[in-house]
Amino acid sequence: MSITVVGSVAYDTIETPAGRRERCLGGAATYFSLSASFFTDVRVIAVVGDDFGPEQQSVFAARNIDTRGIEHTTGKSFFWEGSYLENLNEARTHNTELNVFASFDPKIPGAYRDSEFLFLANIDPVLQRRVREAMPDVKLVAGDTMNYWINGHRPALLEVLKGLDILLINDTEARMLAGNNNLVQAARAVMALGPRFLVIKHGEYGATFFHGSGKGKTGEHTFRAPALPLEQVVDPTGAGDSFAGGFFGYLAAQPELTPGAFRRAMFYGSVMGSFACERFGTDRLQQLSRPEIDARFEVFRELTHLD
Amino acid sequence: MSITVVGSVAYDTIETPAGRRERCLGGAATYFSLSASFFTDVRVIAVVGDDFGPEQQSVFAARNIDTRGIEHTTGKSFFWEGSYLENLNEARTHNTELNVFASFDPKIPGAYRDSEFLFLANIDPVLQRRVREAMPDVKLVAGDTMNYWINGHRPALLEVLKGLDILLINDTEARMLAGNNNLVQAARAVMALGPRFLVIKHGEYGATFFHGSGKGKTGEHTFRAPALPLEQVVDPTGAGDSFAGGFFGYLAAQPELTPGAFRRAMFYGSVMGSFACERFGTDRLQQLSRPEIDARFEVFRELTHLD
Repeated sequence: MSITVVGSVAYDTIETPAGRRERCLGGAATYFSLSASFFTDVRVIAVVGDDFGPEQQSVFAARNIDTRGIEHTTGKSFFWEGSYLENLNEARTHNTELNVFASFDPKIPGAYRDSEFLFLANIDPVLQRRVREAMPDVKLVAGDTMNYWINGHRPALLEVLKGLDILLINDTEARMLAGNNNLVQAARAVMALGPRFLVIKHGEYGATFFHGSGKGKTGEHTFRAPALPLEQVVDPTGAGDSFAGGFFGYLAAQPELTPGAFRRAMFYGSVMGSFACERFGTDRLQQLSRPEIDARFEVFRELTHLD
Repeated sequence: MSITVVGSVAYDTIETPAGRRERCLGGAATYFSLSASFFTDVRVIAVVGDDFGPEQQSVFAARNIDTRGIEHTTGKSFFWEGSYLENLNEARTHNTELNVFASFDPKIPGAYRDSEFLFLANIDPVLQRRVREAMPDVKLVAGDTMNYWINGHRPALLEVLKGLDILLINDTEARMLAGNNNLVQAARAVMALGPRFLVIKHGEYGATFFHGSGKGKTGEHTFRAPALPLEQVVDPTGAGDSFAGGFFGYLAAQPELTPGAFRRAMFYGSVMGSFACERFGTDRLQQLSRPEIDARFEVFRELTHLD
């Protein structure tokens, strides 16, 4: 089944201990769709400027990603500049230029309307809600957000959460959203705001899946996937979006959403996040193959299973 | 097979968001031996003062721990005061009084000399080495250390590392010891200093086991055990020592040290660490049963396994 994703397609200038890259293709919707494209059909809704040309277009085309929902307008594409020099787990933002994104009004192509899966990447919750409401018949809706919206746009974000089946956020965001430092209590509080399922990402330590209906003992309805211990993290940009793409892409390709499917989806999320970190920008995702992905899935099994 | 452990038996005053406890029984050797006692016979080498009486003695006796190697001397026992008010993952030390520990000269009872497993808890590396050399025939030696020894007593610590089969330390300690922020690279550097096996503990995110002979692909010879997502961490004091006790205690009880035995040992380590956090001091370890331990082991399996 196909996924429609709305989010940013952008240029990033990134500095890490491994080096510096100027204006490489980035944005949450880019990482998400490249990652998910290894599992299912993906359709993107975004806005780009004049600086988005055939070269960038070809990155999506090579993965058969539907870009009819990427609006081309006059001006410059969204631009972000950040570094990870002191801490590979947290970006330091040096510059953010919204550019054409400042007046983004998502338009959903008719051909996208039969998508059964919808992913609302990290953008203004007002826009997330607009897209959600324009696609009322989707089977499963997942989304992401960030500190900026949690702190400064809470009422709009709370409206979005009501319409989500799955929320994917990191530790800091979960604690901030819930106002609670204990992750288990924070997870419960966040799920009470709407999402039945919650994925909390722990950076280099993996991610935890919570299922809201769990009323049993500690550990029930909870699943923890590790991250791969990597010898070199070249660039962590987009790892979380790549995780979301692997997780949601795998789910969209399943005939049934069983508890086992969610567990395997967590592993595929971690697998895709690990690949994203291996080179700058989307380089590794562009050169990846499904056999490589499945081989790494087995490495994750070996890393975690007793027998 | 029995384990001999050398380390501190102490009094701790602890403050956490859950409350405050004055002078409860603590110390690395105490947590380690209580935890390991659920798996195998344990013998303790330590020193205590006049303030260590029948009540404290009975805590060890109740778990059939051999305390003939606990030397009683004039003065006060080692005392530590700390809090975890801002961050449950890291203690803030308010006071440390070495007291009788300042002149500790470990004496190994004759009855301990047939122990096949030796654990060198976190104490002065000069003392760790002395005990190690006095027990040359042990089959497997594991040990712990901390920032204080890594920074200020490096040459003595390096001598200890040469005689260790297994080192158990946390992320910060591994990075500091290796002078490398990447955990995989740090693990390799630490193992080059002596230990064939390395356990790096990640606090609430679990722990990773590295095996030095691994020359294959990323992930081979590496095993990651999660920590249990706990609804309330009452007191994290001693969680790392309890992890070590479960890990090493389980190993000591196995007929053969297979790769599978190390994997299960990692789970038992995490299981014991999770129990230790549930109440203040050693309260939970004192009231624990083996069936509870094995039931939680199954919760860990459920938390991490695909099928």
